[in-house]
Amino acid sequence: MSNRGDSVATASNSVDTVDSVTTGPIEGSAKHYREVDDLRIPVRRINLTNGEHFDVYDTSGPYTDTAAAIDLEAGLPKLRDGWERREIEGPRTQLSWARAGLITPEMRFIAAREEVEPELVRAEVAAGRAVIPANHRHPELEPTIIGKKFLVKINANIGNSAVSSSIAEEVEKMVWASRWGADTIMDLSTGKNIHETREWILRNSPVPVGTVPMYQALEKVNGDPAKLTWEIYRDTVIEQAEQGVDYMTVHAGVLLRYIPLTAKRVTGIVSRGGSIMAAWCLAHHRESFLYTNFAELCEILARYDVTFSLGDGLRPGSIADANDAAQFAELRTLGELTKIAKSHGVQVMIEGPGHVPMHKIVENVRLEEELCEEAPFYTLGPLATDIAPAYDHITSAIGAAIIAQAGTAMLCYVTPKEHLGLPNRDDVKVGVITYKIAAHAADLAKGHPHAQARDDELSKARFEFRWRDQFALSLDPDTAREYHDETLPAEPAKTAHFCSMCGPKFCSMRISADVRDYAERNGLTDLEAIDAGMAEKSAEFADSGNQVYLPVVS
Amino acid sequence: MSNRGDSVATASNSVDTVDSVTTGPIEGSAKHYREVDDLRIPVRRINLTNGEHFDVYDTSGPYTDTAAAIDLEAGLPKLRDGWERREIEGPRTQLSWARAGLITPEMRFIAAREEVEPELVRAEVAAGRAVIPANHRHPELEPTIIGKKFLVKINANIGNSAVSSSIAEEVEKMVWASRWGADTIMDLSTGKNIHETREWILRNSPVPVGTVPMYQALEKVNGDPAKLTWEIYRDTVIEQAEQGVDYMTVHAGVLLRYIPLTAKRVTGIVSRGGSIMAAWCLAHHRESFLYTNFAELCEILARYDVTFSLGDGLRPGSIADANDAAQFAELRTLGELTKIAKSHGVQVMIEGPGHVPMHKIVENVRLEEELCEEAPFYTLGPLATDIAPAYDHITSAIGAAIIAQAGTAMLCYVTPKEHLGLPNRDDVKVGVITYKIAAHAADLAKGHPHAQARDDELSKARFEFRWRDQFALSLDPDTAREYHDETLPAEPAKTAHFCSMCGPKFCSMRISADVRDYAERNGLTDLEAIDAGMAEKSAEFADSGNQVYLPVVS
Repeated sequence: MSNRGDSVATASNSVDTVDSVTTGPIEGSAKHYREVDDLRIPVRRINLTNGEHFDVYDTSGPYTDTAAAIDLEAGLPKLRDGWERREIEGPRTQLSWARAGLITPEMRFIAAREEVEPELVRAEVAAGRAVIPANHRHPELEPTIIGKKFLVKINANIGNSAVSSSIAEEVEKMVWASRWGADTIMDLSTGKNIHETREWILRNSPVPVGTVPMYQALEKVNGDPAKLTWEIYRDTVIEQAEQGVDYMTVHAGVLLRYIPLTAKRVTGIVSRGGSIMAAWCLAHHRESFLYTNFAELCEILARYDVTFSLGDGLRPGSIADANDAAQFAELRTLGELTKIAKSHGVQVMIEGPGHVPMHKIVENVRLEEELCEEAPFYTLGPLATDIAPAYDHITSAIGAAIIAQAGTAMLCYVTPKEHLGLPNRDDVKVGVITYKIAAHAADLAKGHPHAQARDDELSKARFEFRWRDQFALSLDPDTAREYHDETLPAEPAKTAHFCSMCGPKFCSMRISADVRDYAERNGLTDLEAIDAGMAEKSAEFADSGNQVYLPVVS
Repeated sequence: MSNRGDSVATASNSVDTVDSVTTGPIEGSAKHYREVDDLRIPVRRINLTNGEHFDVYDTSGPYTDTAAAIDLEAGLPKLRDGWERREIEGPRTQLSWARAGLITPEMRFIAAREEVEPELVRAEVAAGRAVIPANHRHPELEPTIIGKKFLVKINANIGNSAVSSSIAEEVEKMVWASRWGADTIMDLSTGKNIHETREWILRNSPVPVGTVPMYQALEKVNGDPAKLTWEIYRDTVIEQAEQGVDYMTVHAGVLLRYIPLTAKRVTGIVSRGGSIMAAWCLAHHRESFLYTNFAELCEILARYDVTFSLGDGLRPGSIADANDAAQFAELRTLGELTKIAKSHGVQVMIEGPGHVPMHKIVENVRLEEELCEEAPFYTLGPLATDIAPAYDHITSAIGAAIIAQAGTAMLCYVTPKEHLGLPNRDDVKVGVITYKIAAHAADLAKGHPHAQARDDELSKARFEFRWRDQFALSLDPDTAREYHDETLPAEPAKTAHFCSMCGPKFCSMRISADVRDYAERNGLTDLEAIDAGMAEKSAEFADSGNQVYLPVVS
C-alpha cells in the first residue's frame, strides 16, 4: 500500500509516513495520556511558548504518538481486550448494561475524555439519548459517545467507488480524517474489494466505523436492486458485524406507500440506500424486506452491540423538497423502529437531512426528538442552499452549526466535492476542519462548560502576538502558518508585534496594548472599580437623554 | 498596470484580461439589459442547454459585457450623468428626496434590479431603514440599495497595506470582487499612494466604494495617533468626498469614558479606527474629535450625499468579549449619532461585530434596531468561534447567515487570510463566494419572493443530469466544473446519467428517475391523487398506533 504520488499533502515537514499512512503529532503538540484508574485516556497536549500547555480532545489514535510502532499488517493494539464484560439478563450491549445500572469501562473511558461524571454517561445511554458505537469485535476502538449532552461529534465518509480510488488511499483517508478530528468514519465503498478494504480500515481504526450494508449486498447481485433478497442482505450484515463494524445505516423506513410521495419532488429520492429500496419495493410491489424483517435484524445487531443508524432514505435533496410529506412520513416510521430496536437492547441513532433552508432546520430536531424518543440525531449538513456546488462544505456548515445548536448529536461532514466528484486527501481535511468548526460553534452556543477555554486561549495568544501559539491552538496549524508565511515569511515575524494586514504603524492590537499600558500608568489600575464606575456613568448618560456634547467625563 | 505574475487565476480560459483586468462573461452566461423606461438594467443571463434562460442580479458592471470597450485610463461610462436631480428644501441626498416624496432615477434603477415597486424603495429610504450609497461625484455607479427588505448585500474589503500589494492589484481586486458578486467594496489602503489608488478604483468601479478616512489622515501625521487633529481629518474627508467615495466608516462612538471598559477584555480594542481614536483620546485626555465635531461632519457628507457607516470601534475581537459593556455602550452612542446624521439629511448605516457565539447573535440585531431606529445593520461576519484561523471565511459565514436572517442588511466578507495575512486574488474570490452563500441562505430563510427560484432551477438541472446547466447556475461555475472534471474529465461525462460519487450502477438520481418512470408506467400517473391518497394512508397508519408489520398497503 502506497500513497506516493497522491495529491499534495498539506501536512508540515515534521510529519512522517510509515507504511504510507501519516504519523507523528500535529505541529505544536504531542500525544499525552491521562491515567484514570486502570485506563489511559489519550489527549493532544498543545505546548505553548509561555511554558504552559493546553489539552484537547484527541481522536487521532496511536498514529500521533511518536512512541507507538505502527504496523498496518498487524493492526492497532487491541485496547479493549480484557476490559470487563459483565454478564446480565439480555444482550451484552452498552444499552442493556446501562439499563442494568452498570458503568462499563467504555463509559468510564468516555467520561474521562468528555470530562463529565461516568453516571451521566450511563444515564444518557440508558435513556437512549446517547449511543456508544462499539462492536465487541472492534477492540482497537477508543470509545466515543454520541448524544446531545456531550461534545458534538463529526463523521467523515470515505470509501472507494466503482470509478476511482484504491484500498491504500482509503486506509490513509481514515488515518488522515481522524488525525484532524473525525470522531467516526463511514466506509461507503461500492467498488471491488469491499470486504478487504473494510478489514484494513477496521483493524487500523481508533474511531468507530459505520457502513451501509446495502451497498455490499447490491454488489453481490451485480447491481440489480430487483435481485436483492432478505437473505443476501442479512448475510452481509452478519459478515460486516463479524468484522467489527460499529454502526450500520439501515433504510428500513422507506415504505412502499411512501414512494409515490416523492414523485412530484424536484429531486425525487437522493439517498442511495433509499433509492435502492424504493426500486426493490416497486419491482416486487411488496413492502421493504428491511421493514418486514426488522426484528430479526435487531437480534443480529444485539449480538455484537452494533448500533443502528436508521437511515433517512427519503431525505430532501433540494431546498424545494425540505420538510415535505415523504420526509416526515419516513421519520414517523423511524420512530416506530426506534422503539423496536431498543426493546431488543440495540442502540439507535437517527439520520437526518440533507438540504434544508435555515428557517426550517429547527423543526427537524423538534420532530425527531418527539417521534424518536430523543434518540441521537445524526444529520448530513444540512445544506442551507443548493446554489453553490464546489462550496457545499460551507453551505452545509451553516446548516450543521444551526442544527447542532438545536440538539443534533453528530454531523456527517460534506466536502467541497459534494455533488461533483470523489474527495481526495485535501478535500477530506477541508471537510473535517469545516465540520469541527460547526461542531465547536454549536458547543459554544449550547454553553458546553469546557468549550470556550480553547477560544479564550487562542485569542489571548493572538492579542499577545504569540504567533506560534496561535497556530498551535488552531484547528489546522499547518494552514494557519502557511497563510501567515505567504505575506511575512521571515522568522522574526513570528514574534513581531504586528502582522501583514495593517503593518507596524497601524496595528490595532499593538495600539490596544498601548492603551492598556497607558491606563495602568495613569493610575487606572483598579480595573474592576473602573468598570463598575464606567458602567454607572454610561447608565447616567443614557438617562440624560443621550445628548451629544455633554461635558467630557473620564 | 499589470497583474502578470500574480497568484494563479481561477477564471476559465474563455476570460480575457484587458489592460490587466478581468473581462468577459462568467461561463455559461452573457450580459443582458432590461429596458425599464429610460433606464437599462443590467442582468446576468444564464443560458441553459434546454433552450431556456435564467436571469440573476448582476454586480459586475461593463466588465462582463463583451460589447463594452474597457479603458482604465478613461474610466467607466458616467451612467448617472444627466439623471434628474430635483431641487428641494435641504440637502440633495437620497434621504431628503425620499422624505420629500420624490422617486429618484436611482430608486427606479434599484426597484427594477430588485424586482420590487419603486415606492417601496422610496419609503424604506425615507424611513432610514435602507440606504443608497451614491456620491454625486461617483457617476459611474450602478445604484444599489442596502436595507433589510431587499436582497442581503455583501461587501469586499480590498486595499494595500504598508507591507504588501500594489495599485494594479487593488484595481483588479475590485473588478474581480464585483465580478463574483460583491455589492460594494471598501478601499482600506494604508500604504503609500492612497489617493491615487482610490482614484483608479473609483473611476472604474460600478459598485459603491467605501473608505475609512482615518487611515489616510493617520498617514498624513506619519502614523502617530497623538498628532491627529480635527482639521486634518476633516480635510481628508473632503478630499475623499470630492473623489466620489460613496460611504465612509466613522468611529465617532468611541468615547473617552468607554475606553477603560475594554481594559479587562481578552482582546482589548481590535478595530483599527477604534484603537487609533482610543489612543488619541488617552494621549490628550479629551473627548473624541469625531464626536465633538459630528455636526460639521454631517454637513460635509450631506453636500455629496456620502452615506455614514458608523463604525463599531469597540467591537469584540473574540468570543469572550462579545456583547459586553464596551460594545453596547458604543452602540447606544451610535444610536444618538444616527438621529443627528438623519436630522442633517445624511443616510446612515451601523457597523456591527466581529466575533459572537451563535446564541448571542440575534441580540445584536435586536438592540441595534432598538437603539438606531432600524438603520441598516452592516456586520463583519460575525465569527462564531475563534479557533480556526485560515478558515475564518467559514467561521464567519455561519455567523453571517444567522445575523442576516435576523435582519442584517449587508455583510462584510472575511477571507481565509483573516488574522493571518493579506488576501490575494484567490482569497478575494473565496471570500466573495462564501458570503454570497451566507447572503442567499438568509434571503431564502427570510422568504424573499425570488430567492428560491435559483435553487430550484439548479436542483432541477442536477436531477436531470444537465451538468453544464448545474455549473452555469452555480455561484462559481469554473470551480464546479473543475472539481467535476478532476474525477470524470471526459467530455461525454458532462451528459452522463451518473457521476463519479456512486458510479453508473449505484446512482440514486438515476434510480429515482427510474422510480418515477415506473410509477407512470404502472398507472400511477395521476400523481396528485396518489399524493393525497398516500397522505391519508399515512395518517391512518399513524392513528393505528404505528404498529410494525401491518398488512402492506400500497
